Amino acid sequence: MYKIVSIPGDGIGPEVVAGAVTVLRKISEKHGFEIRIEEHPFGGASYDLHGTMLTDQTLEACKNCDAVLLGAVGGPKWENLPHEHKPEAALLKLRKSLGLFANLRPAKVYDPLVDASSLKAEVVRGTDFLVFRELIGGIYFGEPRGYDENRGWNTMVYERHEVERIARLAFEAAQKRGGRVISIDKANVLEVSQFWRNVVHEVHREFPDIELSDMYVDNAAMQIVRNPLQFDVIVTGNLFGDILSDIAGMITGSLGMLPSASIGTSHALYEPIHGSAPDIAGKNIANPIATIASVAMMFEHSFCMPDIAEEISQAIVSALAAGLRTADIAGAGDRIVSTTEMTEAIVTSL
Amino acid sequence: MYKIVSIPGDGIGPEVVAGAVTVLRKISEKHGFEIRIEEHPFGGASYDLHGTMLTDQTLEACKNCDAVLLGAVGGPKWENLPHEHKPEAALLKLRKSLGLFANLRPAKVYDPLVDASSLKAEVVRGTDFLVFRELIGGIYFGEPRGYDENRGWNTMVYERHEVERIARLAFEAAQKRGGRVISIDKANVLEVSQFWRNVVHEVHREFPDIELSDMYVDNAAMQIVRNPLQFDVIVTGNLFGDILSDIAGMITGSLGMLPSASIGTSHALYEPIHGSAPDIAGKNIANPIATIASVAMMFEHSFCMPDIAEEISQAIVSALAAGLRTADIAGAGDRIVSTTEMTEAIVTSL
Ligand SMILES: CC(C)[C@H](C(=O)O)[C@@H](O)C(=O)O
Ligand SMILES: CC(C)[C@H](C(=O)O)[C@@H](O)C(=O)O
Repeated sequence: MYKIVSIPGDGIGPEVVAGAVTVLRKISEKHGFEIRIEEHPFGGASYDLHGTMLTDQTLEACKNCDAVLLGAVGGPKWENLPHEHKPEAALLKLRKSLGLFANLRPAKVYDPLVDASSLKAEVVRGTDFLVFRELIGGIYFGEPRGYDENRGWNTMVYERHEVERIARLAFEAAQKRGGRVISIDKANVLEVSQFWRNVVHEVHREFPDIELSDMYVDNAAMQIVRNPLQFDVIVTGNLFGDILSDIAGMITGSLGMLPSASIGTSHALYEPIHGSAPDIAGKNIANPIATIASVAMMFEHSFCMPDIAEEISQAIVSALAAGLRTADIAGAGDRIVSTTEMTEAIVTSL
Repeated sequence: MYKIVSIPGDGIGPEVVAGAVTVLRKISEKHGFEIRIEEHPFGGASYDLHGTMLTDQTLEACKNCDAVLLGAVGGPKWENLPHEHKPEAALLKLRKSLGLFANLRPAKVYDPLVDASSLKAEVVRGTDFLVFRELIGGIYFGEPRGYDENRGWNTMVYERHEVERIARLAFEAAQKRGGRVISIDKANVLEVSQFWRNVVHEVHREFPDIELSDMYVDNAAMQIVRNPLQFDVIVTGNLFGDILSDIAGMITGSLGMLPSASIGTSHALYEPIHGSAPDIAGKNIANPIATIASVAMMFEHSFCMPDIAEEISQAIVSALAAGLRTADIAGAGDRIVSTTEMTEAIVTSL
């Protein structure tokens, strides 16, 4: 029996999570295991009910389940709240409280959608790499931090154990993929990066079968745009990972398709990389694929059932191959389907 | 009379600087003003002669001239030196000593080269924006910094006056361009960014004719790849500018074409954005256009002669229109010309 906390959140969150839950139920029926799904408020939805984006109950529930499934949070309604009440603050608190030190973002181009990229088809076709972003350290959480009338300051800091654990995960992932890891830093300028690089190379000694190289962050940003096929596994810190994983998502041309996993030693959270898209919320037109693909990642990483992950991925590919397109991925002449139609097609293929 | 210090540096540096000097001489003849060019060593070339990448003489010379023209520095030969001897350290010292607080990087797509981009021609055609990167503050220079066995740390810090002066330059530049500035930060997470944003908005009050908006750095990296036409002037800090200006260069598809200016209150340095490219050094095949375009920026920013800057730009466009291509920008079937041939063609158009 698996206990899943679902957090629909704001904007299109509830619609795409509903799609993913339909898939979860179908999988559990088909394979005969029990899934218990408990829904909790978070983000703006929670703020409107309880005056806080993240209640103690929601946090406790997330700590006491096998996996969290998150839709999206935030929207213009909550943008002008003071900093400590904003969705971003709640998200960072959730990540930190659950110890989700590794953010995994696959950058994968689905062949039928290759023309959706702003990059040339011949440049992006076949793109398939995985970004490991450190998620609860670095400049996001470093102290001292603050600002006054005359200056602002933050601290980018990494401890040995923080680098070791994310590096290890990246190397392990590379063993199941192409066997190549590129660690990205700014070691030619920053001491924290030099430290990062040293520790990654130390951990590498445990993985003689993996090829490790280093790349500066400015060059990496260019290389992802120039030739994304050169990457297999990328590992990097919190801030660089924030920027690079977004570039990686963008070049695929299908932000509405991309899932993510944030994992720690004892908890894990899965969510689409797209935002809450308030402008299209409630219209049954959002693309549920990224959230459904996040469920696939859940089966792979939290439930150790890679076969079911693959089953879900195949069902997504089938729906695309059958020509189904939500508005965000439709080209000229495509018939556009709704969130629920896309979900049904995927469930049917399962 | 203008006094220019030329620093050919390493790799292809001497060849492309020679091209740019030829252009300088032609311009001075044609318009009847005197230019005195003094050459100094820097980088690996200096290290091999004097045991240091930046001698006091070179630094003094740079302080006592009207503009510095730099080729490129570094190469595999000097890569394994201790950190404090590396070209990067010398470059940062030079920037800091000369007070070059603003790095200007135009991202411009030359129409005849539009197909060289990894982005679709219809996405990049017409791209023309200008990045203002703060160059002597932020995490590059912040204290405390260091690393030991168990942790590494750096400090991202901005003072009010540092943000004010770069913001002011960006607004002034926008007045001569499209009138729009986008300031890029990570204010949803970093206090130093919130401070940056506040100060930029305060300075904006002096420029009611300019439209100012803010963008998060992760989104900005995506937007440059998705739709570069949306930008006019970008202003951002040192680290974000390092990453974003490289993405901006890459999407044009012609890194060998792009110049830069680094300017301060009393000094200025001009250089191509490409590196020393040791693999093609000494072969007379490097593209001199980026360095020649850097001379155009010198006339605009240091000598206040925008007409001559425009003249040089037009000569570059003419050479391209006549079909001349160095190897880096040649397409299938193009006849490839040498560094000196390209230079001659540009000089002839002047
Ligand atoms: C919303 C923001 C705090 C967050 C981050 O920077 O981590 C987002 O950009 C992300 O990548 O999940
Ligand atoms: C070489 C390096 C120190 C430098 C920087 O990071 O500023 C380079 O990337 C640049 O952009 O000029």
